[in-house]
Amino acid sequence: MKGEWGEHCGIFGVYGHPEAANLTYLGLYALQHRGQESAGIVSSDTQTLHSYRNMGLVSEIFTRDVLKRLPGRSAIGHVRYSTAGSSDLKNAQPFTAHYTRGELAIAHNGNLVNAHILRDELEAHGSLFQSSMDTEIIVHLIALSNENNLAGRAVRALKQVEGAYCLLFLSENEMIAVRDPHGFRPLVLGRQKNAYLVASETCAFDLIGGEFEREIEPGEMVVVNEDGLHSFYPFTPVTPSHCVFEFVYFARPDSFIFGRNVYAVRRELGVQLAREHPADADIVIPTPDSGFSAAIGYGHEATIPIELGLIRNHYVGRTFIEPRQSIRHFGVKIKLNPVKELTKGKSVAVVDDSIVRATTSRKIIKMIRRAGAELIHVRISSPPITHPCFFGIDTPMRSELIASSHSIEEINRYITSDTLGYLSLEGLKRCVGDENGSFCYACFSGGYPIKFPTRMGDSQLRLFEDR
Amino acid sequence: MKGEWGEHCGIFGVYGHPEAANLTYLGLYALQHRGQESAGIVSSDTQTLHSYRNMGLVSEIFTRDVLKRLPGRSAIGHVRYSTAGSSDLKNAQPFTAHYTRGELAIAHNGNLVNAHILRDELEAHGSLFQSSMDTEIIVHLIALSNENNLAGRAVRALKQVEGAYCLLFLSENEMIAVRDPHGFRPLVLGRQKNAYLVASETCAFDLIGGEFEREIEPGEMVVVNEDGLHSFYPFTPVTPSHCVFEFVYFARPDSFIFGRNVYAVRRELGVQLAREHPADADIVIPTPDSGFSAAIGYGHEATIPIELGLIRNHYVGRTFIEPRQSIRHFGVKIKLNPVKELTKGKSVAVVDDSIVRATTSRKIIKMIRRAGAELIHVRISSPPITHPCFFGIDTPMRSELIASSHSIEEINRYITSDTLGYLSLEGLKRCVGDENGSFCYACFSGGYPIKFPTRMGDSQLRLFEDR
Amino acid sequence: MKGEWGEHCGIFGVYGHPEAANLTYLGLYALQHRGQESAGIVSSDTQTLHSYRNMGLVSEIFTRDVLKRLPGRSAIGHVRYSTAGSSDLKNAQPFTAHYTRGELAIAHNGNLVNAHILRDELEAHGSLFQSSMDTEIIVHLIALSNENNLAGRAVRALKQVEGAYCLLFLSENEMIAVRDPHGFRPLVLGRQKNAYLVASETCAFDLIGGEFEREIEPGEMVVVNEDGLHSFYPFTPVTPSHCVFEFVYFARPDSFIFGRNVYAVRRELGVQLAREHPADADIVIPTPDSGFSAAIGYGHEATIPIELGLIRNHYVGRTFIEPRQSIRHFGVKIKLNPVKELTKGKSVAVVDDSIVRATTSRKIIKMIRRAGAELIHVRISSPPITHPCFFGIDTPMRSELIASSHSIEEINRYITSDTLGYLSLEGLKRCVGDENGSFCYACFSGGYPIKFPTRMGDSQLRLFEDR
Amino acid sequence: MKGEWGEHCGIFGVYGHPEAANLTYLGLYALQHRGQESAGIVSSDTQTLHSYRNMGLVSEIFTRDVLKRLPGRSAIGHVRYSTAGSSDLKNAQPFTAHYTRGELAIAHNGNLVNAHILRDELEAHGSLFQSSMDTEIIVHLIALSNENNLAGRAVRALKQVEGAYCLLFLSENEMIAVRDPHGFRPLVLGRQKNAYLVASETCAFDLIGGEFEREIEPGEMVVVNEDGLHSFYPFTPVTPSHCVFEFVYFARPDSFIFGRNVYAVRRELGVQLAREHPADADIVIPTPDSGFSAAIGYGHEATIPIELGLIRNHYVGRTFIEPRQSIRHFGVKIKLNPVKELTKGKSVAVVDDSIVRATTSRKIIKMIRRAGAELIHVRISSPPITHPCFFGIDTPMRSELIASSHSIEEINRYITSDTLGYLSLEGLKRCVGDENGSFCYACFSGGYPIKFPTRMGDSQLRLFEDR
Repeated sequence: MKGEWGEHCGIFGVYGHPEAANLTYLGLYALQHRGQESAGIVSSDTQTLHSYRNMGLVSEIFTRDVLKRLPGRSAIGHVRYSTAGSSDLKNAQPFTAHYTRGELAIAHNGNLVNAHILRDELEAHGSLFQSSMDTEIIVHLIALSNENNLAGRAVRALKQVEGAYCLLFLSENEMIAVRDPHGFRPLVLGRQKNAYLVASETCAFDLIGGEFEREIEPGEMVVVNEDGLHSFYPFTPVTPSHCVFEFVYFARPDSFIFGRNVYAVRRELGVQLAREHPADADIVIPTPDSGFSAAIGYGHEATIPIELGLIRNHYVGRTFIEPRQSIRHFGVKIKLNPVKELTKGKSVAVVDDSIVRATTSRKIIKMIRRAGAELIHVRISSPPITHPCFFGIDTPMRSELIASSHSIEEINRYITSDTLGYLSLEGLKRCVGDENGSFCYACFSGGYPIKFPTRMGDSQLRLFEDR
Repeated sequence: MKGEWGEHCGIFGVYGHPEAANLTYLGLYALQHRGQESAGIVSSDTQTLHSYRNMGLVSEIFTRDVLKRLPGRSAIGHVRYSTAGSSDLKNAQPFTAHYTRGELAIAHNGNLVNAHILRDELEAHGSLFQSSMDTEIIVHLIALSNENNLAGRAVRALKQVEGAYCLLFLSENEMIAVRDPHGFRPLVLGRQKNAYLVASETCAFDLIGGEFEREIEPGEMVVVNEDGLHSFYPFTPVTPSHCVFEFVYFARPDSFIFGRNVYAVRRELGVQLAREHPADADIVIPTPDSGFSAAIGYGHEATIPIELGLIRNHYVGRTFIEPRQSIRHFGVKIKLNPVKELTKGKSVAVVDDSIVRATTSRKIIKMIRRAGAELIHVRISSPPITHPCFFGIDTPMRSELIASSHSIEEINRYITSDTLGYLSLEGLKRCVGDENGSFCYACFSGGYPIKFPTRMGDSQLRLFEDR
Repeated sequence: MKGEWGEHCGIFGVYGHPEAANLTYLGLYALQHRGQESAGIVSSDTQTLHSYRNMGLVSEIFTRDVLKRLPGRSAIGHVRYSTAGSSDLKNAQPFTAHYTRGELAIAHNGNLVNAHILRDELEAHGSLFQSSMDTEIIVHLIALSNENNLAGRAVRALKQVEGAYCLLFLSENEMIAVRDPHGFRPLVLGRQKNAYLVASETCAFDLIGGEFEREIEPGEMVVVNEDGLHSFYPFTPVTPSHCVFEFVYFARPDSFIFGRNVYAVRRELGVQLAREHPADADIVIPTPDSGFSAAIGYGHEATIPIELGLIRNHYVGRTFIEPRQSIRHFGVKIKLNPVKELTKGKSVAVVDDSIVRATTSRKIIKMIRRAGAELIHVRISSPPITHPCFFGIDTPMRSELIASSHSIEEINRYITSDTLGYLSLEGLKRCVGDENGSFCYACFSGGYPIKFPTRMGDSQLRLFEDR
Repeated sequence: MKGEWGEHCGIFGVYGHPEAANLTYLGLYALQHRGQESAGIVSSDTQTLHSYRNMGLVSEIFTRDVLKRLPGRSAIGHVRYSTAGSSDLKNAQPFTAHYTRGELAIAHNGNLVNAHILRDELEAHGSLFQSSMDTEIIVHLIALSNENNLAGRAVRALKQVEGAYCLLFLSENEMIAVRDPHGFRPLVLGRQKNAYLVASETCAFDLIGGEFEREIEPGEMVVVNEDGLHSFYPFTPVTPSHCVFEFVYFARPDSFIFGRNVYAVRRELGVQLAREHPADADIVIPTPDSGFSAAIGYGHEATIPIELGLIRNHYVGRTFIEPRQSIRHFGVKIKLNPVKELTKGKSVAVVDDSIVRATTSRKIIKMIRRAGAELIHVRISSPPITHPCFFGIDTPMRSELIASSHSIEEINRYITSDTLGYLSLEGLKRCVGDENGSFCYACFSGGYPIKFPTRMGDSQLRLFEDR
C-alpha cells in the first residue's frame, strides 16, 4: 500500500524574507532532483496561510500569477516523487489543516514505520483522514496534543512516531524544522541576510545566494519566529544512521551533507572501486549523469582515459509514444545513444552507481555491445542492493531487487557484461569515513537501525492514556 | 528583419513505412537539439496530406491522439529554433499549400541569401505570403513552374535561389530530399527495412533502429516514390562549404556528418587546443555539456585530471521567475552550480567550445572564482567568432559578437579569467582534415563562400522571362 | 464568514444502476440552475469510493474520460454556487473522508445554524478541518459516533445539528438520503427500472427517463442498500417550513416540489399580482427568464398582451471584459437588450419575480426608458425581501437588501419606475395554498422558524458526554 | 465539398476608436448567434496588423491578455459556424495575408457561386492556397489587381466574383465595407462618438452604446480612413434579393435589418399564420427561443392563451455524454422539458419558425404527447423549405430537407402531430411587405436570383486578359 513505502522528497523553508514564496520556489527548483511528481508551497502573511500544490515540475507549476497569490515573509515548500500510478493531488505536500489553535502546514521528507498502528488508533478515536500520507498522522497527533505552543505539541506528537523524518512546520507566525534522532535524511540551515533558510541540501542555498550555516543535527528542533532562532534537543539521543545512499546516488554532487561534499565522496568511491576491481580496459565510460563522479575517480586511479561514450538526450518528455513495431533497445535509446567510434573494437569499463532491477543495465550493455565493443567490464560504485528501504527512498519490493536473489556472477550473465565488479561494503564504509557506525547500510546489509513495531505492542495503550 | 536571419533547424523524412508519422516523431525527438521552439509533421496517405504543427518540444506537441491523425506511409518533419520574441506559429514548419498540381509540404534547414529580391518579385507578380519564412518563397516558385513533375518544378525553383538549404518535399505520393550545391548543412540517408529515411544527423536513425546508408551529396536531389529511390545532380557543381560550426558545437556528439564522427572531431579540437595553449592547471573543468568532448581531449593531451566541477540542473523550464531582489550570478546559477570542494584554492582550466557575447562566460568565471579558484585559465576549442552566419545558424548581429571588436586580451579581461586561449584557425582546419578547402569558416574569418546579391542585379529580369 | 452563509446547491443520487455515474452526471446537468460554481460525483464499486470534483459547469467538468474513472452501481453528486471570491476547490462537494468504518461521501443542500458551536467543540476535541463547509462537521460527528451502522451514526450526528439540510450519504455499499424535520429544501424520490433515484427536483428524473415516486418527507431518512429501500422517521416531528422562495424563483418551472408544479404556482402569483396591482399598460414584458411564468399569469388576468420585449444573449461567458470607456448600462446589456419597436411610446408593465439590491432593476428600467417607453409599471410577484436567509439560499447581508431599509415608494423612485407593486404576503400564502402554516416566509417577514443557538447553550456539554 | 456551402457568419468593424479591439470583441459577442464555431479579430496600429483567431465562443477566446495584444484604433472581427466535422482553425477568419502593397485582413459573410472556377484559374496562374475558404479567392484577386489603391483593387476583384457577400477589409490605415449588389445579407453602419462602426446587425451597436446610422446599401462600398467616410456604388445595380430567412429565423429579434425590426416582422408572421391556420387549442406553446415571437402573434390573433410549456436548459455544453442505455427522447430532453401540468389533457398549438429535417420536431411532439397532451397542432411561421441555400446560410443537402420530397400531410404523419399548418409564401411576402420583389425566397421556391456559372463560360478568358 501507498504510504507504507517511502518517497523521494525535498523540502525548503524560509523565514523573514519579503519574497519568501519566490525564494522557496527557487529552492524547490534546485531540489527538483529529489522529486518530480508534485510540488507545493505554503506561505504565511502572519494572519493566514496561503497554499498552492499541483502535479508536475516546479518550473511548470509556479507561474508569476501563482506566486503572487502566496504573500508573506515566511514559506515552506515540498517536491515529491512516488511510484507511477499512485500519484494523486491529495497526496501532494505541504499538507494543511485547521485545528483548534489555527492553521498549520507541514512538509515531510522520510517515512514512518509505525504509521499503520497510529492511523488505526486515530481513526478509532474518531479522526477523519483525507490522504494516505504518513504526514497526516503527525498533524492529527499535534491537533490532539494539549501543549501550549506549537513546538511543544510537535514534540509530543513526534515522540509517538518512529521512522525517518525531516519536517518543516509553518504556522501563522512560526517556522519549525525537525530532524529525526537517527538523522536518516540530510537537513541544512542557512541564512540570506536576515532571513533563515532550511533545505534538504545545500545546493538550494547556492541558487538563491544564501550562506550555508550548518547542518541541523539529528534529533534537533529549530524554532524560528519573531524572537529569532531557537534550538532544542527534545528527543532521547541515539546513534545516527545517515542514509549512505544519499552519497551513492540521491543527493546532488554539488551539495554538502553529512559533513562531506557529495562529489568528493562519490569520486572516492570510484577510486576505491578501481582498487578493488581493476579492469583491463581501453577506456572508461560513465553512465550519464549518475556515474560521472565515480567514473572520474575510477579512470584516474586506474590511469585509463575517460570518454563520454554515452550521449544523453536532454529533452526527455514525461510520456513517450513508442511505435507499435518493436525497435531494439528502444526504451533506453530514448535517453542514451553510444558513440560508436569510441566503442568499436575496444575493451570498455562502464561505471555506474548502482544496479536495482538490472533491466536497464542489461539494455545499456547490449546497446554498447551492438556499437562494437569487444569487452565490457561493468563497475558499480556501491555494493549489491539486497533489501528495500523503509526510511524514505522509494526502492522496489525485495523480490524485484536482482541482488536479493542472484549472485554477482548470475547478474553478470544476466546483464551480458564480460566482468562485473561491485564496491565492497567495507570499501564503501571507508570512503564515507564511517568510524562510529553512524550510517545506515540497510539496503546493502539488511541491518535496519529501527525495529518495526507490530500491532501487538503496547504503544496502542499509551496513545491516549493521558487525555 | 526576421527571415533574413538563419535559424537552427532539423529535418526528418520517411517513405514507405506503415508508421511513418511515429518514426518521424522519434526522428525529430532525436534532433530536438537542433531546434526547441516549434515542431511539425506532415504525412501523406497517398490521397491527401495531414499536418500538425505547434510551438514547444516534440515530446509535448505530439500526443498519441495527434499522431493518430497523421496517417499514411510517408511523412516529413521539422524542428525549429529562432530568436526570442519573433516566435510565431505561422512560421512553424513543414509549410503546406494547395496549388494547381495538388498539395505540397516542405521542410527547410538553412536560409537563402536572395530571399528579399525573390519575394519582391513574387509579390509584384501577385503572390500572397502567409509567413515571413524563406521557405514560402520556394513553394511559390514551384507553383509558378510549368515543369511536368514535382522534381522538375523543384529544380527550376531551386535554380533561382541562392544560399544554404537542406530540403524535404512531400507530395501525395513522393518524397524529395535536396542538399544545396555547397553542402552547408548535413543531410544523411538511411534505411529501415524497406523504408527510406532522411535526416539532418545520423543520431535520428540510431533511435529508430535505422541503418545509416550514406550522406546525401552537395547538389544532390533524391526522389523517393513507389518506383524506389532515384538520385540526380541537377545543379552546377561548386566547391563544398560544409559548416565547420556543426563540428564545433551544433551537431550531436554521437552523429556522423561530413565524413566524420562529431565526438571524435571535437575531442581532437581539445587535443590541438592543449598543444596550442597549455595551462598550468590542477584540474580541467568542462562547461556542461558543450565543452565535454573537447575537455576530454584537452585533459588527456595535457595530462591534467578532468573533474566535472560544474553541475547542471536538468529541470530547466522555459520561463523562469527571478526574485525582485537581485541575486549574484542568478541567470547562470539556474543552470549551473560549481562544486566548491573541487575549485577551492586550485588552478583551474575551464574548457568551452566557443564564446559569442561573452556575458555567460563572464558569469561562469566569476562564479568559479567565488567558489574559491585561485587561477582560472579559459580555453576555447574554436577561433574567435568575428562574423555573423548567413547560412542557417542563428548568430547575433556582428556588433554583439565580442570578438568582432575586442582583442583576445580584452576579452580575457572582460570575462575576468587569468588567461584565455582560443584554438587557431589553422588548428581547426587541421583537426577537421580540410585539405581541399571544403569547409566554411566565415564566422571566424569573414570569408563568405557566396556573394550576396543586390537588388540591382539582373535576376529580377530573369524570373518571369519565360512565362 | 463563508460557511455561515447558505449556498445554492443541488443534489442527486442513484443506487443500483450499471451506469450510476453517467445518470448522476445527467441528473446534475438538469439541476445546474441550482449551482454553477463547482460540481462533483462520487461513485462506489462496493469496494472503494471513486471521486471527481472541480470548479465549473457539469458539462465542462465531466468528460467521457472522467466518467469512466467513476465505476460502480451507486453514485451521488452535487452542484454548488457560492458568492464570488470565496470559491475554492476545497469547498466543492461531495465531501469524502476515511474513518474507522471505511470511506464516506456526503452531499449537502442547506446550511446549519449551530455550525460554529459544533466546530469549536470538535476542534477542542482534536478534530482537523480541511474545509470551511458545514458539511464537514456532520462527517466528524459521524466519525465520533459509536453506533453500529451508518444510518445509526448519521441519526446520532444529525440530532446534534440544527438548520436546513437535504443530505445524501454514500458508503461502499449503501446510499442514505435525509431531509431535515422542517423540510426547508425539496427532495424527491424516483425509480428507473430497478434503480432508486434521489434528487433536489423532479426535472432531474425527466431528463434520464426516471419515474417520480414521491417526495421524501420532512424528517424522513431513506436507506437504500442491497436489501432494498427502508424508510425511517428518527427525528422529533415539527411543523414544516418549506422555503417559499423555491416556488418564487429558485426551482425550475417544470419541477414538482412541495406538492405542486412550480410553473403553475408561479403563474398564479402573476394572476394574484394582477388583481392586487393592476396597471394601465399597453403591453406586459417579462424579465427573462425568471419573470416569464408570472408575466403570463399577469397578462392573462389583466387582459394585456404579453410581448417578449427584452432579448436575452444566450452566450454569456463567465468572465467578461469591459472596455475602459464606460458604456451606459453596460453590465445589464451584456445579458439583455430591449426591442425598441415594442417599447417606443408605450405604457409598459415589467414583471419580475423579486428585487434584491435593486441595482439591476434600476439598470433595466433605465434601459427600457431609453428605448422609448413612456410609462413603466414594475410588478413583482413576491413581497419585499427584508431579511436574509439562513437556510440555504445565498441572499446578501440585511443591509444590502433594499427593502430592509426603504419603503416601496422609495424603491420605486430609486429604480426610476413610474409605479411599483409587490405581491402581498397574504396573496403569496393564498397562491401556495398554505393553510397549515407549513412554509417559511422569513425573508419577507423575519419570522425565522428556528431559534439561533448561542455558544452559552448546553449543547456544548452534551456533545461528548457519552464517550 | 467544403467551401461550396455557405456558412453562418457575423462581422463587425470599427475605425477610429482607442479601444478598437475591445469594441470589436463586444460587437462579436452580440453577434454570437450568427456563428459559434470560431472567432477572430484583426487590429491595425497603422504600422502593422495584429491578429488572433481561435475555435470556440467569443467570451472564451478573447481574454484580457489576448485583447491587449491587439492594439490600434481600427479593427475588424468575425464569428463563424460551419457544419460539424469540417471545422478547422485554418478556415477561421479574418483571413490575413502579405502582398506587394502591404498587409490585408478580410472578414466575409456570405458565399460565392463561382468560387470553383476562380480558384482553378488562380491556381493555374500559380497562386498558392492556404485554406478552403471562398474568402481567400478574393484576396488573391486583390493581390493580382494593378489598381492604385485598396478600394480600386477590391472593386476590380469583386467584379469577378458572383454570389453573396458582406465584406470588411482592413489594411494598415483603412477599413472598407462592401455589400454585394443583391444585398443578400444585412450590413449596418453606426457611430460611437467619432468612431465609425459596421456590423451584420444593429444589436451589436446597442451593446456598445453606438448609434445606428443607416443600412449599407446593396452594391455600396464604404471606405473609412483618416479623411473620413466615403461611399461608392461601383457595381451595376440589380434588383435586391434580401434573404427572407434572416427575418424568419436567423437574425436577433432586437435587430433592425432590411428596413424593419425583426421581432415585429416575426410577430406578424404569427398573426398571419393564425389567420391561415387557426387551431382549436386550449393553449399556444412556443418552441424556445426561435418560436417565441411568432407564438406571441399567433396567440394574440387567435385569442388563445400563451403558456411557456417547454422549459429550456440554459447550460447546454458543447459535447454531451449520453448513457449507453438509450433514454427516450434523450437528445431533445437535454435542451427542453415540457411542463406536464400545462399539457395534460389539453389541446395544444405548438408554434415554431421552420422545419428542416423534422427529426427534432418529431422528438418534441412525441415528448409533449407523452406529457399528456390530447391534441397537438403544429404551426410553422414560414413555408416548407424545399431547396438548399447557396447564399450564406448553412442548410443541408436537398435530399435531407423533408419538405423537398414529402407533402405537408406526410410530414404531419411523420412528426406525429394531429394537424400541421405552414405559413403560405404569399402570407410571408405580405408580412415582410415585399411589394417590389426585393427578397430571396429560393429556399421555399427554388427561384434562385443568380444563375450558377458553369466552367464553360467565358469568365475564364477574361480573368487575366488585361495583365
